[in-house]
Amino acid sequence: MKLKVIKIGGKVIENDTDCNYFLNEFSKIAAPKILVHGGGNIATKLAEKSGVEVKMVDGRRITDAAMLEIVTMVYAGVNKKLVAQLQERGIQSIGLTGADLNVIKATKRKVATIDFGFVGDIDENGVDVEHINYFLSNKITPVFAALTHDGEGNLLNTNADTIAAASAMACAGKYDVELIYCFDKSGVLLDEDDDDSVIPEILMKELQKLKDEEVITAGMIPKLDNAFDAIKKGVKKVRITNFKDLAGGTVLRI
Amino acid sequence: MKLKVIKIGGKVIENDTDCNYFLNEFSKIAAPKILVHGGGNIATKLAEKSGVEVKMVDGRRITDAAMLEIVTMVYAGVNKKLVAQLQERGIQSIGLTGADLNVIKATKRKVATIDFGFVGDIDENGVDVEHINYFLSNKITPVFAALTHDGEGNLLNTNADTIAAASAMACAGKYDVELIYCFDKSGVLLDEDDDDSVIPEILMKELQKLKDEEVITAGMIPKLDNAFDAIKKGVKKVRITNFKDLAGGTVLRI
Repeated sequence: MKLKVIKIGGKVIENDTDCNYFLNEFSKIAAPKILVHGGGNIATKLAEKSGVEVKMVDGRRITDAAMLEIVTMVYAGVNKKLVAQLQERGIQSIGLTGADLNVIKATKRKVATIDFGFVGDIDENGVDVEHINYFLSNKITPVFAALTHDGEGNLLNTNADTIAAASAMACAGKYDVELIYCFDKSGVLLDEDDDDSVIPEILMKELQKLKDEEVITAGMIPKLDNAFDAIKKGVKKVRITNFKDLAGGTVLRI
Repeated sequence: MKLKVIKIGGKVIENDTDCNYFLNEFSKIAAPKILVHGGGNIATKLAEKSGVEVKMVDGRRITDAAMLEIVTMVYAGVNKKLVAQLQERGIQSIGLTGADLNVIKATKRKVATIDFGFVGDIDENGVDVEHINYFLSNKITPVFAALTHDGEGNLLNTNADTIAAASAMACAGKYDVELIYCFDKSGVLLDEDDDDSVIPEILMKELQKLKDEEVITAGMIPKLDNAFDAIKKGVKKVRITNFKDLAGGTVLRI
């Protein structure tokens, strides 16, 4: 049976019109499906408004205790709003963090050179497939916020791309999984300033060549590495596409 | 089979030491159980910090769109923290609003003399017992935040006492339900300044007399009216007690 795991980008959920567009498209997909979201930009704005310092190192957020409070509220709040809006569209859904049903267990990232604070790395076999299966087989769409927990009472800020990939991999044993990263661009672009230059398909064996030729650069590299990692671990294909075109964009496969 | 539905007061969850004490006591209760919470004071503080005006009429909060954003984030955030802390204690639990699984359907309160804004009144038969039963019979503790939804995409701020009572009544068909309101006082007091003056038991037939004699006054009257309403609708008993003494305080029964 097919399963689509869809991660929606932060810029889309920030914009009501875009978010509605996406939710309409998402609702049209025949079940089973899983939605994953973050909300980092909204968290940054709330932190600034409420006087919590936003700390970044090398473009990455440091989640200290005060920021964890903000991130928890924002992600959990966005999560509940998305669920209410899916219910409006007749999609039976449930909002989850990793703490709910202990469904994604993680470990606080060890301090190497940078202390990222309350940031979680998902444990090996940390995704509980049994509960996810219960929901999917009862036509209930899980909606994951980018929060996991450590089993010791702490929530952990966790990259939404990673949660999507981990869920997709965990479900690959039972389902033919397509992992879809959707955002405001059209896909993986040959020319990053030209939204019409989408590469329709990238095979795993082509990846190194595209990196060597610097067709794929900077921010897209970890995304593609993670995507192919998911494919190696059983996900059938990964799609990187615009939120308005869930069947388009770039398809990655073996 | 017995079921305890426990509503925890806002002052308790605001204080980490008290909240830990309560969660330890709550964890000791043999399943099945349901936890219900609000978080109004925390919402007020976040509103003030982030520049959202707090509007009150006759001591009751007006939930305009900006305040709904705040309330959603705060209640949903508290909800996820409580779930993480229950998991730490080995209590398998799941955080829910009324939107999740469409489990509590409500209607935005009609404007009479006061427009309360995005405030929900739970629909007749608005609580979906089937999903609650699934969780309870699988030893999963539902944790309800004081948010419902209208089925049209809107979350609604909803009194936590009312959610607790509605859940208790909805489960009364299948379980012997005890509804427990716990807070920072010791119970229903004969003398409101004397925490040792707890009335251990109030029978339904005694209520009018206690009101007439002004033993029960002000804020306690709607709480007791709601409690006896729940008892009329099948809840076995209602307890009003301190968060440190979940088997003590005042017991209300037929």
